[in-house]
Amino acid sequence: MTTEIKKKPERILSGMQATGELHLGHYLGVLTNFVALQNEAQCFFMVANLHSLTAFYPNYQDAHRFIAPMVADWLAAGISPEKAVVFVQSDVPEHAELAQLLAMFTPLSWLERNPTYKDKQANTEKDLDSFGFLGYPVLQAADIVLYNATHVPIGEDQLPHLELTREIARRFNHFYGRHEGERAAEKDVLTVPQAILSEYPKVMGLDGRKMSKSYNNSIVLSESAESVTKKMMVMKTDTARVRRNDPGNPENCPVFSYYDFFAPELKNEVNTGCRSAALGCVDCKKQLTARVVEKLAPFRAKREELASKSEFLNEVLHHGAAEARKVAGETLKRVKDAMGMVTRYSL
Amino acid sequence: MTTEIKKKPERILSGMQATGELHLGHYLGVLTNFVALQNEAQCFFMVANLHSLTAFYPNYQDAHRFIAPMVADWLAAGISPEKAVVFVQSDVPEHAELAQLLAMFTPLSWLERNPTYKDKQANTEKDLDSFGFLGYPVLQAADIVLYNATHVPIGEDQLPHLELTREIARRFNHFYGRHEGERAAEKDVLTVPQAILSEYPKVMGLDGRKMSKSYNNSIVLSESAESVTKKMMVMKTDTARVRRNDPGNPENCPVFSYYDFFAPELKNEVNTGCRSAALGCVDCKKQLTARVVEKLAPFRAKREELASKSEFLNEVLHHGAAEARKVAGETLKRVKDAMGMVTRYSL
Repeated sequence: MTTEIKKKPERILSGMQATGELHLGHYLGVLTNFVALQNEAQCFFMVANLHSLTAFYPNYQDAHRFIAPMVADWLAAGISPEKAVVFVQSDVPEHAELAQLLAMFTPLSWLERNPTYKDKQANTEKDLDSFGFLGYPVLQAADIVLYNATHVPIGEDQLPHLELTREIARRFNHFYGRHEGERAAEKDVLTVPQAILSEYPKVMGLDGRKMSKSYNNSIVLSESAESVTKKMMVMKTDTARVRRNDPGNPENCPVFSYYDFFAPELKNEVNTGCRSAALGCVDCKKQLTARVVEKLAPFRAKREELASKSEFLNEVLHHGAAEARKVAGETLKRVKDAMGMVTRYSL
Repeated sequence: MTTEIKKKPERILSGMQATGELHLGHYLGVLTNFVALQNEAQCFFMVANLHSLTAFYPNYQDAHRFIAPMVADWLAAGISPEKAVVFVQSDVPEHAELAQLLAMFTPLSWLERNPTYKDKQANTEKDLDSFGFLGYPVLQAADIVLYNATHVPIGEDQLPHLELTREIARRFNHFYGRHEGERAAEKDVLTVPQAILSEYPKVMGLDGRKMSKSYNNSIVLSESAESVTKKMMVMKTDTARVRRNDPGNPENCPVFSYYDFFAPELKNEVNTGCRSAALGCVDCKKQLTARVVEKLAPFRAKREELASKSEFLNEVLHHGAAEARKVAGETLKRVKDAMGMVTRYSL
């Protein structure tokens, strides 16, 4: 799933907005990736709640209450607060502080040219015309460089944003990073991060479109086994296969696509069975559903356990914020020192 | 000098960028006003060094070293750290943090329409194309509302900026300020500030143009009496008065304009003497210079005393920052609480 790592990652920053209940798409895409990464490098996993404000500003409280359940999902999926630093962006004021400094160095034209900027505005009913939304990549640059992240796991569509982070970090280093007589390797104040290009699998929803909360076609991670079973049994299949004895085409069947994640060893058999009509859709779904339920069982057990552990979750997030602030505070101090923005004033 | 105060000011926020040595123009304009205001209300006087970054970003260290001398000038002019809170903007991280939140609520179009935005860009050789420069009024709004300032002393050209602060504060209150059952007066989270329209006198420079560092026509506040005298004696007068016995026109004479500030009781006499050629330019300058030197003497004495008190200046600024953070921290907490951005996370 992970390609194009040019150097071994040392520090990783990744974030997710809490906009609702996490579903199977998040689990198979992002969370599985987070869990793998935390064993490879020092990871900082951030709830990007300041970014949520761009779309949620009139009713931010609605977004805020998704934070704890989302973090519970993270932990249930295997993210370990012992291995990774798990925190909420707004608990670390250094993000806003560094973003304010970087904003002064960032040409407006870089942000206006950002290809995802107009795209996002065009593809949403939300009001995305705020100054803060235009500056999204500046805050994102601060998020990343605060932790000296060497790598950021992103999908290909996020590459322009990361390129902006890289440009902003380079620009800062250009103005304030050079000290005569130092070797090139020593002169960078900010770490210029690399992408870990992650091919996040496209998980289909119950209706065959991409799984998405807004399509109401999701299997939510915290759902019970019964609910998952019920949903899967009415999941869309190859619409051309009308009767039990008609042969089907697995390429047109959302159910078949799930075998990739939950029972890859059965794919060949199912493929043949479907095309020859030896395997009916009901049986095919039944055996798949059993696997899905089985695979999600440990998640669900852990998630249910966490549901009553509000105190523990707060401890994780407060400890995470404290750990994050240590690193972020050091970076901010280094930045200010490099700029000459010292708190000792000389006449 | 001060007009249009609709309500008695309770809290005042004002700031100044440290961009070089202060001159007579600053003294007669801003500093005299600051000194008067500190006796009328709780004043917060801020060195706006984050704003300096918009123009100074490639060499910010050059601006930073003007801070301590400027604050020494403030104190020498009579600003009292016992009466007012004197601090440096970047020592109070709440400014950047609140600005980041407000940015998410501020429509881009408000900033693009800001009339002083394009004006400033057109009238400078500096590169003012940064994202941060466009967002100048957002940071300024944060500067002001953080201290619940009821009043801001500004020149007429600053009115559009203050109007933006007022709009941003109202917008926040609109989204997050309403609580059912509360009276209107109690429902505002942010104080919407009023202007104290101050008619800053235009102080002419030695060459008859507006006094400005960039014109190299200033009398710098820290200059010696000898230097002031030397400069004033070669100051431009009415160019039409070529010979001693020619009558002059005081309206065209920069020297005459100084009588307003330093010897208003002599104006009539000088006016008549100049027009009748009874008073020569050299004598006119001599008597004025004596007054200027006399009036600046207490400033210069205090300023010289402070020149060796680096420790004291740092104490003033560090104490000021701590006082400012108390108020700013409370406001930021109130803002976050109103938004529901609490640090106690509930499942």
